[in-house]
Amino acid sequence: MLEDIKKAVYEANMSLPEHGLVVFTWGNVSGIDRESNLIVIKPSGVEYSDLSPEKMVVVDFEGNVVEGNLKPSSDTATHIELYKAFNDIKGVVHTHSPWAVSYAQAGMDIPAAGTTHADYFYGDIPVTRAMTADEISNEYEKQTGKVIIETFNERTIDPNHIPGVLVNDHGPFTWGTSPSNAVYNSVVLEKVAEMTYHGLMLNDRSSRMDQELLDKHYLRKHGKDAYYGQ
Amino acid sequence: MLEDIKKAVYEANMSLPEHGLVVFTWGNVSGIDRESNLIVIKPSGVEYSDLSPEKMVVVDFEGNVVEGNLKPSSDTATHIELYKAFNDIKGVVHTHSPWAVSYAQAGMDIPAAGTTHADYFYGDIPVTRAMTADEISNEYEKQTGKVIIETFNERTIDPNHIPGVLVNDHGPFTWGTSPSNAVYNSVVLEKVAEMTYHGLMLNDRSSRMDQELLDKHYLRKHGKDAYYGQ
Amino acid sequence: MLEDIKKAVYEANMSLPEHGLVVFTWGNVSGIDRESNLIVIKPSGVEYSDLSPEKMVVVDFEGNVVEGNLKPSSDTATHIELYKAFNDIKGVVHTHSPWAVSYAQAGMDIPAAGTTHADYFYGDIPVTRAMTADEISNEYEKQTGKVIIETFNERTIDPNHIPGVLVNDHGPFTWGTSPSNAVYNSVVLEKVAEMTYHGLMLNDRSSRMDQELLDKHYLRKHGKDAYYGQ
Amino acid sequence: MLEDIKKAVYEANMSLPEHGLVVFTWGNVSGIDRESNLIVIKPSGVEYSDLSPEKMVVVDFEGNVVEGNLKPSSDTATHIELYKAFNDIKGVVHTHSPWAVSYAQAGMDIPAAGTTHADYFYGDIPVTRAMTADEISNEYEKQTGKVIIETFNERTIDPNHIPGVLVNDHGPFTWGTSPSNAVYNSVVLEKVAEMTYHGLMLNDRSSRMDQELLDKHYLRKHGKDAYYGQ
Repeated sequence: MLEDIKKAVYEANMSLPEHGLVVFTWGNVSGIDRESNLIVIKPSGVEYSDLSPEKMVVVDFEGNVVEGNLKPSSDTATHIELYKAFNDIKGVVHTHSPWAVSYAQAGMDIPAAGTTHADYFYGDIPVTRAMTADEISNEYEKQTGKVIIETFNERTIDPNHIPGVLVNDHGPFTWGTSPSNAVYNSVVLEKVAEMTYHGLMLNDRSSRMDQELLDKHYLRKHGKDAYYGQ
Repeated sequence: MLEDIKKAVYEANMSLPEHGLVVFTWGNVSGIDRESNLIVIKPSGVEYSDLSPEKMVVVDFEGNVVEGNLKPSSDTATHIELYKAFNDIKGVVHTHSPWAVSYAQAGMDIPAAGTTHADYFYGDIPVTRAMTADEISNEYEKQTGKVIIETFNERTIDPNHIPGVLVNDHGPFTWGTSPSNAVYNSVVLEKVAEMTYHGLMLNDRSSRMDQELLDKHYLRKHGKDAYYGQ
Repeated sequence: MLEDIKKAVYEANMSLPEHGLVVFTWGNVSGIDRESNLIVIKPSGVEYSDLSPEKMVVVDFEGNVVEGNLKPSSDTATHIELYKAFNDIKGVVHTHSPWAVSYAQAGMDIPAAGTTHADYFYGDIPVTRAMTADEISNEYEKQTGKVIIETFNERTIDPNHIPGVLVNDHGPFTWGTSPSNAVYNSVVLEKVAEMTYHGLMLNDRSSRMDQELLDKHYLRKHGKDAYYGQ
Repeated sequence: MLEDIKKAVYEANMSLPEHGLVVFTWGNVSGIDRESNLIVIKPSGVEYSDLSPEKMVVVDFEGNVVEGNLKPSSDTATHIELYKAFNDIKGVVHTHSPWAVSYAQAGMDIPAAGTTHADYFYGDIPVTRAMTADEISNEYEKQTGKVIIETFNERTIDPNHIPGVLVNDHGPFTWGTSPSNAVYNSVVLEKVAEMTYHGLMLNDRSSRMDQELLDKHYLRKHGKDAYYGQ
């Protein structure tokens, strides 16, 4: 079942080490079939070199394995929460990519500081609050998803326009219109974190770009008036 | 038409990812035939792996497509302005290379701090002022070219001797005597940005080299008395 | 003798340059047979490209060569001390990996600042005190082992839960349940040192993660209640 | 003539890009035959991919070309000065490797901050004073050699024990017992510059290692009592 999505999820997972976003097994990508609300995700703890489309695991919104012999990624419950709350997304990625993690550990948003950022993220990339002891103790992975959603709700951020987040003292999750688009956003987030780190070190009074420039770059690539790179 | 320039522009575009200057499609190179004032430029939004010399697009100084089935790079209007104002240049490159972008986001010139810089850029590499809301709203890509030209005019910088610029909160443009020479200057600018960043972090009171050393290194490689690397 | 361990030690040594942890011959891995207390270690000063399983050297707890025609690594005495004091470990690695060395030279622990760290190290990765002139003059390599052990004893750190250390102004040693597991921990230590460096530069008031999050991440992967990545 | 040295110099030059020390043609290696005092050096401005042993140029101590059809490296006069003043060296390397250049641009010695440094450099790696306008105008490349030698003389540094230097606002020169040994020292200098930069950023009060540790590491590898890595 869902062979196309399995292939897409497999290929998206394989692209993580190619983009330098993960070492060992430190990353996972999923995709969803929005008709059946079934999620296809990387199995847990399997080396990238041992993956194949057939090894992808299919789970439902309760986390039950619907197909597959391997255990789904331990982060599956986080992916599920994101798919349930963010209705338009069709792919989710989690990595420990180093520049993004640096911001997560610093507890800092990545400010929208330049057009590379603005081409794909329509504003600052938020960091979540620290999770409470209770959230960490009970259904931690599910609560990780919930604290992401809370962040977007409380700050009234549209996840379709800011397709990524930093979980405090942990690392980035990104999403998108497909598994490969979610990976693309992970690459952008990592590259933007790197650029903006060095820009802040050079001049910490110049962190945020003008709103007009942010609007221009985001909107020329996204939405009904887009004309860039089409 | 312009088969030699198409080949040169194609090869120069392909060299951008090899030099680590771009990820995805985040860069473009053009060349010009100064007799006809026709510009050859990378098509918009095409993956580097799908490029070929035949896919390069030919446009005139008004931006009309003279040959080619694909849309020219969205940054074409910026390239055109540069070719119109800087009469001697025959190649233009735009990238979002990370060290150069860091300076652009910081709103800082790259100071001429050492001989690597002086071998190719005869002084600080300037950053433009921020663009106005009006410039951003109306013919943004053309205005990007105009603000670059304004920077060189107001600071009386010779674009033949400082073959590159940082567009504020955006990234670098470089140019040169050919498409490949413009790429060469992009590599130099990126490497110099990296070196000078770390030098400034070590000692921020020692940012600019002596004028005599700058003269020596630039002039032994460029101009009528050049003797280096010939 | 000990052909399996020789092969494992050989392969672990060969993986050091693949992971970018060493240049030239700046690293060594050993393994131990806990029944005979014989240690298999890389020969001294041999290029990685010239290594083979047969060239690994077997030594006893007194450092006597039991098998092999080459001289054992000059750091053998340090490895021996670690195997004698830390009863559960079966592999030891020493490198001069650059991010870890930076902390060693700064004389700083790597604080447990995020979940990447917590997944493998259950607390700060300690730096040893500087060695005394006397320790440096007399059996330096053996004393290097002893100062590591002192650090773990005085700070009551369990080496099974913090499988690595920074020797002051020198570099990292890691260990593990096998030679390859010790290499894995070297990769983690280096990556965590990089992430945490940049996090500290962004926000030096936010260096240490909450204890609950540290517990959660370490314990979901290690110990009797582990459920992650199994 | 000098076929062995040509081959060694050729191979040493080719190893510069492999070690990531140079881009384009930004580096050169030479070797010397101490019997005839003839120097073999890379030709000027030739791409690494176009080099061959036969293209190496032979010059005497006056800089006259004794053999070869190409122009010798523009830095030849600096190499000659070093061979004339430092009697034991048999290879010289010049690069613009980025970490070393950062220190040169900052006008800072690389302090002996850890054992990686101490294994190959017996003390701080000095930076020269800035050159005078007169030195820059008259026989600049020769004067570059002279200011290096002045630095070693005035600070009574033995070039056999500190086989490298940073030329102010320029970059590193290293030397050694052969062309390949000089390249080795360039790699060490670059790696040490990187490590020590990050160590200084973490803790700028902890820049220099104890003298006893410096002695131990340098002397266990060099000199009559060496026992390490033999």
